[in-house]
Amino acid sequence: MTITVEVTSKVAAPSRTKIIDSDVHPWINGDIKGLMPYLSTAWQRRFEGSKSTLPDHPLRPPLAGATSIRRDTKPPGGGAGGSDPEFMLEDHLDRYDIEYAVLSSIQAGKLATLPNTDEAITLARAFNDYFMNEWLTVDSRYRLAMCVAAHDPLAAAEEIRRIGNEEGVVAVFIPLLNTLMGNRHYYPIYRAAEEHGLPVLIHPTGTEGGFQTSVAFAGGIPSTYIERHTVFPEIAMASITSMVFEGVFVRFPGLKVVAAEFGYSWVPHMLWRMDQNWREFRREVPWIEREPSSYVLDHVRFTSQPAEEPEKDEYLLQILEMVHADRTMVFSTDYPHWDTDSPKSTFRRVPEQMRWRIFYDNAAELYGLATPARV
Amino acid sequence: MTITVEVTSKVAAPSRTKIIDSDVHPWINGDIKGLMPYLSTAWQRRFEGSKSTLPDHPLRPPLAGATSIRRDTKPPGGGAGGSDPEFMLEDHLDRYDIEYAVLSSIQAGKLATLPNTDEAITLARAFNDYFMNEWLTVDSRYRLAMCVAAHDPLAAAEEIRRIGNEEGVVAVFIPLLNTLMGNRHYYPIYRAAEEHGLPVLIHPTGTEGGFQTSVAFAGGIPSTYIERHTVFPEIAMASITSMVFEGVFVRFPGLKVVAAEFGYSWVPHMLWRMDQNWREFRREVPWIEREPSSYVLDHVRFTSQPAEEPEKDEYLLQILEMVHADRTMVFSTDYPHWDTDSPKSTFRRVPEQMRWRIFYDNAAELYGLATPARV
Repeated sequence: MTITVEVTSKVAAPSRTKIIDSDVHPWINGDIKGLMPYLSTAWQRRFEGSKSTLPDHPLRPPLAGATSIRRDTKPPGGGAGGSDPEFMLEDHLDRYDIEYAVLSSIQAGKLATLPNTDEAITLARAFNDYFMNEWLTVDSRYRLAMCVAAHDPLAAAEEIRRIGNEEGVVAVFIPLLNTLMGNRHYYPIYRAAEEHGLPVLIHPTGTEGGFQTSVAFAGGIPSTYIERHTVFPEIAMASITSMVFEGVFVRFPGLKVVAAEFGYSWVPHMLWRMDQNWREFRREVPWIEREPSSYVLDHVRFTSQPAEEPEKDEYLLQILEMVHADRTMVFSTDYPHWDTDSPKSTFRRVPEQMRWRIFYDNAAELYGLATPARV
Repeated sequence: MTITVEVTSKVAAPSRTKIIDSDVHPWINGDIKGLMPYLSTAWQRRFEGSKSTLPDHPLRPPLAGATSIRRDTKPPGGGAGGSDPEFMLEDHLDRYDIEYAVLSSIQAGKLATLPNTDEAITLARAFNDYFMNEWLTVDSRYRLAMCVAAHDPLAAAEEIRRIGNEEGVVAVFIPLLNTLMGNRHYYPIYRAAEEHGLPVLIHPTGTEGGFQTSVAFAGGIPSTYIERHTVFPEIAMASITSMVFEGVFVRFPGLKVVAAEFGYSWVPHMLWRMDQNWREFRREVPWIEREPSSYVLDHVRFTSQPAEEPEKDEYLLQILEMVHADRTMVFSTDYPHWDTDSPKSTFRRVPEQMRWRIFYDNAAELYGLATPARV
């Protein structure tokens, strides 16, 4: 049997595709010590007395050095991989001629593990000030996904209003609590993000399933990193389904979501299943005005990394079409993490017709970045 | 661009495909009252005094009558749809010329909600005796997925040894607790199932995410039935990933698993992601001797219902190939539930080369049922 797949986009691809990298992770030089200049004296004393590092998950990748950061990204001047903005320019942005890199801090993701709300709010603010001062000032190619502590959604909204209009702030990273994203708890954050034209970003932060307060996996606690890393998509599946059916995108029609690093070949199933259920059960969710999948296509973006590696190359093309990658996918590397995808390897795997959309246009629209002339 | 998919099976399809239905739900006539003859006097008194029905999930499908059972399956003599074995023969097995129907009780699935272990063990035994006496005796086309209370794995193993060799018992239905299936808690059940050549069956039972003891969804509690039904795959994804990486199939090489009613187009992502992670992190799970996906293909079977409904017909064929449906899929109807798939509609959607495998052979091998002469 022969199955013919027509890729419908007719846009002529240029010889040179510009790049926005939607998932780059800077590291705070010195962990909590690096944040000290951004904390009040009272808070400095509190952290000095009680904590020397941010919490970490008990399951770590079994890599050399037991860190998730590539050893070759270590700055020559010392410090952890990803901790030197000048070296990252050279090692990553210059090397691949990246126009913009959207920074999100995995360390900020640990906020979700903190049982103390005041600590979480204070640290979120310090994280944001750190990256605005130490990174955004270095090069205008750096853009920041500011973080918020979802523990207190009103305080989180206030933080968005404090810095959401700053040049260089392009998204709001929400380290997830164990409350589904459709829950009204998050509404003040969504309202503030929408008002500022900032997409909200979710990301596996290394805290899933391991702490009382942060988001849990289905069915229990994985016992190895390899298992934990395999089931990350559950979090995005649960979060997006919840947002759609709770009507978040009806209530906040300008809100966008970036699901970074959760993969994407599970997405077609979710889209079809949503629509199938809606045909049967729409009266349970009368606020949903059109096919649920259409909200996902309009409001949710998935990152290209980690690259899917199917058994056959043609499966990837089929999946990209099923997931409407020309609308929903934004390129990402996950630099400096162990499973970084280079722009070159992704470039080869993506059909020519989709390249501009995936490598640049979708992200430019999402983050409100200038669209360059196509040379 | 044209993508060519070669379907490799060369088996000539016969004009007439025989059918095994792997997911049929009988109902106990009279709820707990119907079980009374199968309980001791002491237990009869306890249930009469404390409970008139089995627990039910707070989120029910918004269908007429608020039940998940099709109204047209109600027996003419009265009682709930699915409660009369004679009528089910006529209404379902005879109508579609089904060779075998594997019965699993959704009511037994509620066992996972019971906080009292003795109650759960006692009810599991009563359920099994009920169906062996009231159903298996009626027609040899009926086969039973006996149930166990996973609360006490040693008692569950004992129950398997009590009736696992009975004619007509072909599987062990495990209503899932909120403990991942790779956890050693379940080993005694797996050992007993393997010894008896019985696959273990998991199924969304209507208890997910709604009770303290039963399996929870990722990230929090869905608030509508449509959302709950959309995220069922999380449970299977978590369960299978856990079994694979914990090495359950290395420890129990004869064990098979049926993931009934969880869909399947999310499966390729899980397979690819497992293998990708294994290439990087195999030293964390040294007991895994070969590609993790190969354990899934060898040990796990997925049901055809609910039928996936992609935007384009060709996507279904692509997904069936990606999921290796010729090895991993068993046909099912989910009769008498609201979303029953008729054999005819599934037949039309499955490529001819895979039909025998999906409609009969895979299930015959799985349950140890006789393979009929191909006429």
